[in-house]
Amino acid sequence: MISLLHTPDGVRDLYGAELKEKKRLAASINRTIELYGYDALDTPAFEYFDVFSKDIGTTPSKDLYKFFDKEGNTLVLRPDFTPSVARCAAKYFSEEKLPLRFCYEGNTYINTSELQGKLKETTQIGFELINDSSIYADVEAITIVIESLLNSGLKEFQISIGESNYFKGICEEANLDEETELTLRDYITSKNFYGSREFLSEQKIDATLLDKLEAISKVFLPQKDLEALYENATNERSRNAIKRLLDIQSLLAKAGYDRFVSFDLSMLSKYHYYTGIIFTAYTYGVGDSIVKGGRYDKLIGQFGKEAPSVGCVFQIDEILNAIRRNHLSFTDNDQKKTLIVYKPENYEKALEEARKIRKDDIPAELVFWEEGFSKEYYEKKAAETGNQCFFI
Amino acid sequence: MISLLHTPDGVRDLYGAELKEKKRLAASINRTIELYGYDALDTPAFEYFDVFSKDIGTTPSKDLYKFFDKEGNTLVLRPDFTPSVARCAAKYFSEEKLPLRFCYEGNTYINTSELQGKLKETTQIGFELINDSSIYADVEAITIVIESLLNSGLKEFQISIGESNYFKGICEEANLDEETELTLRDYITSKNFYGSREFLSEQKIDATLLDKLEAISKVFLPQKDLEALYENATNERSRNAIKRLLDIQSLLAKAGYDRFVSFDLSMLSKYHYYTGIIFTAYTYGVGDSIVKGGRYDKLIGQFGKEAPSVGCVFQIDEILNAIRRNHLSFTDNDQKKTLIVYKPENYEKALEEARKIRKDDIPAELVFWEEGFSKEYYEKKAAETGNQCFFI
Repeated sequence: MISLLHTPDGVRDLYGAELKEKKRLAASINRTIELYGYDALDTPAFEYFDVFSKDIGTTPSKDLYKFFDKEGNTLVLRPDFTPSVARCAAKYFSEEKLPLRFCYEGNTYINTSELQGKLKETTQIGFELINDSSIYADVEAITIVIESLLNSGLKEFQISIGESNYFKGICEEANLDEETELTLRDYITSKNFYGSREFLSEQKIDATLLDKLEAISKVFLPQKDLEALYENATNERSRNAIKRLLDIQSLLAKAGYDRFVSFDLSMLSKYHYYTGIIFTAYTYGVGDSIVKGGRYDKLIGQFGKEAPSVGCVFQIDEILNAIRRNHLSFTDNDQKKTLIVYKPENYEKALEEARKIRKDDIPAELVFWEEGFSKEYYEKKAAETGNQCFFI
Repeated sequence: MISLLHTPDGVRDLYGAELKEKKRLAASINRTIELYGYDALDTPAFEYFDVFSKDIGTTPSKDLYKFFDKEGNTLVLRPDFTPSVARCAAKYFSEEKLPLRFCYEGNTYINTSELQGKLKETTQIGFELINDSSIYADVEAITIVIESLLNSGLKEFQISIGESNYFKGICEEANLDEETELTLRDYITSKNFYGSREFLSEQKIDATLLDKLEAISKVFLPQKDLEALYENATNERSRNAIKRLLDIQSLLAKAGYDRFVSFDLSMLSKYHYYTGIIFTAYTYGVGDSIVKGGRYDKLIGQFGKEAPSVGCVFQIDEILNAIRRNHLSFTDNDQKKTLIVYKPENYEKALEEARKIRKDDIPAELVFWEEGFSKEYYEKKAAETGNQCFFI
């Protein structure tokens, strides 16, 4: 009988103050995004396997929850929203040339076997700005992240921004084949400096380029070093990548937001669909990133619509953890309930009182006054949850 | 490439006006429930198979979406919320003796193979009043259904109420074994009058009881006929069942809500966990029920806590269909966006304008003025979605 009470590993029940805070947090982030003109989009919790396949470049197949429909097709619980939003943009807005702004909220599912206590069902809120290759789009995305986190109650957080074209430009210049590039990328992404150096030493690469590739995995860039990288760039693709970051920094500075960002060219993401900037937000109290995003100019093309895009997701459970661990709870002014404890003969009077209270948009709960229970008992129960109670 | 655009059968994408209306509808129903003092509860989208197994009495195993975790346990996408809420009540509130009120919102999944165009992923909002066996609890549940539907914009709907004990009382009196009772119940539930009559004629049952059992599957009861059934009841369980319905009717009448209800003793539900009243709401424009619920006094006991309870779910997709088909849309006063179409040299000015508009809690969308696009083009696009636009 006891086993019936358990939830599977990595998923959980939420209730009480924690769920209220999660809902409040989600509403705040959603509203910040909506104020930038984003329209909600809702996609199914599962899709055909191909939408999340290796070609699309999202989660590895072994980490997907897979099952079958009655016709034998493989279905997958979404590990990520972006491919689904890309599919929708290609399906319903194939002819649209102007920018499209979509936002979404829901749960995603990753079937990890790692015993790190990681959640397998996580709540994400995200947005995608589609059909827009401009730097203004990149800046809007990062601005929304900053304002959403500030509005959530977080005061200190840092957004690391990378640009995958810097790495790709040097790989092109060094004539690395695709396999070598992917291997190197994995070393860099996993911050494996020694592996990266050893691997590079085995390749026949011009010494200057070797230095640059090694530097990517070593250096966590202070903002001012960007200019030096720009001057020293030896190919156009890498130089343009650094130029983009410098321009983003300068536009963010005008809003006073540059203090929230730093640059990290080793950020290449395990999602292969990113083609430009990549960014990740961190804060105190949680080890994992709280926001992940970037530019993906080729992804929607895989669904049949060429549309440069930028977007990101907020990891709601992680942000909630950060808020709670930093005691930044913003539900103190949570709406309380009024409990009306009534004796059977006063049922109709209690009903009438409750109706009046609800008319003022305050929750009123009718509680039958059980025989043998004292006033004090009910008062204590109400006080525990911060609610008021009266007796009829 | 084209196949990548398809969603699996029975699930769908939602966006634009339809999704806005769905969100508005959900918020309205949630608020109505909250005002009665219900607290939100959130459970995982999948659980161990046993939570939804045959013993619990929910959806047949063949209609569940099943898959495995990495340890080989069978997981199931929830077909229904009630067993999960029952599990939570038993797990987190095992010692609580006072009434508990929980509400929830989310999607449920049924893997039907029927080609009826039925959705396999549907949104449900529901509530459960736990630890309360009183008729007041039954009346509160039905009252919330009525007020939620009225607040949603529906004007005409009907709630059919049954009481499973009427049928069970006669079965006991006739000494039917469990298998016979279940077969008969299936005939009655599926409104198979002839099957029911033929099956009954094969049983050795006292003529009076036979008439009563036949009558259950034939009669759709006008309210006044209840009194006659009460007078003619030949066993206590059946009589008490009718008494309960009469009392519910009389309490609802005091609020002027009796016009929304009628009685139907053939409603026995395919969910076997119902033990008392069972109710279903219908409206014009959709064939399926829009609300389903009832009393389940034994279910939570299967998870280890004896707790009489009543609850129901709103089928949000069906209610949305009904609202749309009856042209009852309540999103006419939907908040519009302001589009700011800007030339590159005016980017900062546009940013400033957008900031001001957002401060007034109005969504403002920045649109880069693409070369070759006329003012009229942007104005037409904005008008199509009811938004306003201006140019900088």
